[in-house]
Amino acid sequence: MNDVLEKLTQVLEDRKQASPDESYVASLHEKGLNKILEKVGEEAVETILAARDVAQGADASKLIYETADLWFHSLVMLSHLGENADSVLRELERRFNLSGLEEKASRG
Amino acid sequence: MNDVLEKLTQVLEDRKQASPDESYVASLHEKGLNKILEKVGEEAVETILAARDVAQGADASKLIYETADLWFHSLVMLSHLGENADSVLRELERRFNLSGLEEKASRG
Amino acid sequence: MNDVLEKLTQVLEDRKQASPDESYVASLHEKGLNKILEKVGEEAVETILAARDVAQGADASKLIYETADLWFHSLVMLSHLGENADSVLRELERRFNLSGLEEKASRG
Amino acid sequence: MNDVLEKLTQVLEDRKQASPDESYVASLHEKGLNKILEKVGEEAVETILAARDVAQGADASKLIYETADLWFHSLVMLSHLGENADSVLRELERRFNLSGLEEKASRG
Repeated sequence: MNDVLEKLTQVLEDRKQASPDESYVASLHEKGLNKILEKVGEEAVETILAARDVAQGADASKLIYETADLWFHSLVMLSHLGENADSVLRELERRFNLSGLEEKASRG
Repeated sequence: MNDVLEKLTQVLEDRKQASPDESYVASLHEKGLNKILEKVGEEAVETILAARDVAQGADASKLIYETADLWFHSLVMLSHLGENADSVLRELERRFNLSGLEEKASRG
Repeated sequence: MNDVLEKLTQVLEDRKQASPDESYVASLHEKGLNKILEKVGEEAVETILAARDVAQGADASKLIYETADLWFHSLVMLSHLGENADSVLRELERRFNLSGLEEKASRG
Repeated sequence: MNDVLEKLTQVLEDRKQASPDESYVASLHEKGLNKILEKVGEEAVETILAARDVAQGADASKLIYETADLWFHSLVMLSHLGENADSVLRELERRFNLSGLEEKASRG
């Protein structure tokens, strides 16, 4: 499952230069940071609601779809601000190797 | 950057069985789905605010940290419901290969 | 400024019986609770972003507009579940009279 | 139920000048806008989850409590930025008198 985020990062970089009429990603960049952040927030809420639906017996496909939307729009946000998934994964790896998850537990 | 999510998925599975007193992940599972979803929502908001800070000149480290928190808690959510990152990455790959990003653009 | 919420509560009750084609409120009820909750979440995020814009010098009209949207959709949510603004105001009054704000401070 | 928001607006103005050690409201102002907006976001998510609990049969007291928290923190946000509930209620009244709710429906 590994290089999906790497490939997607490249796609997102390419689409930054595309025409807003032809690319959803380019249209988000043109609308600006607030529109991208609205989408991050919307997809977080839709993910939360889909998770509750799964807990009540719905199949998981909508949850997977909404989580993909959430990650995707957070990748567009990172790209808009000159960052990318690699930095986030390195942060997760740092926590993982250094038992950072326990560190987090101890602070709250 | 590739296998971080795969390794983290394994860590999350292991921690599901750990003692809530010793593992933050186990303590989240014990508190239940609503607590996990509250964390997903909180981290989404903190990510949004950190992104605005970056747009105003802050360095990106807090944004990377909050996005890692957002992804991490969404992985705990998936694990709590018997799902994992692999399904989300396959959904992103499907959209990527099948030009699903444009498909999304067309539906709004 | 007083009886606006009381009048609005009555309007919302009336609109619950209206045709979804003619009333935005009725169309929300027809779409169901998840759609109403998505709107609550969306308007919260738009309020947060508008507040940051005001802090950077934008005039307050968009913040007022988005906060009105947030309160309005939370009123529709209450109405959908058989509750209304009166209960929320009585809860706020209870905290106010009984110094509940300090009580909240003490619990963190 | 009428003058609760008016009285609360006055309390919030008074507490702005209080010591952060003695007043939760003053401590929020001291921590700054991001902390206040994090609370607005958190309370919106807790409201959404409580609403789903009511739909599954929980009694409404937690929903009322969380909605009160959401409105309360949005009032602190307004106060922090030099605004108050009166402007929001006038915006709601304007929509109500001018059938603004239908106007909203027509724009989607």
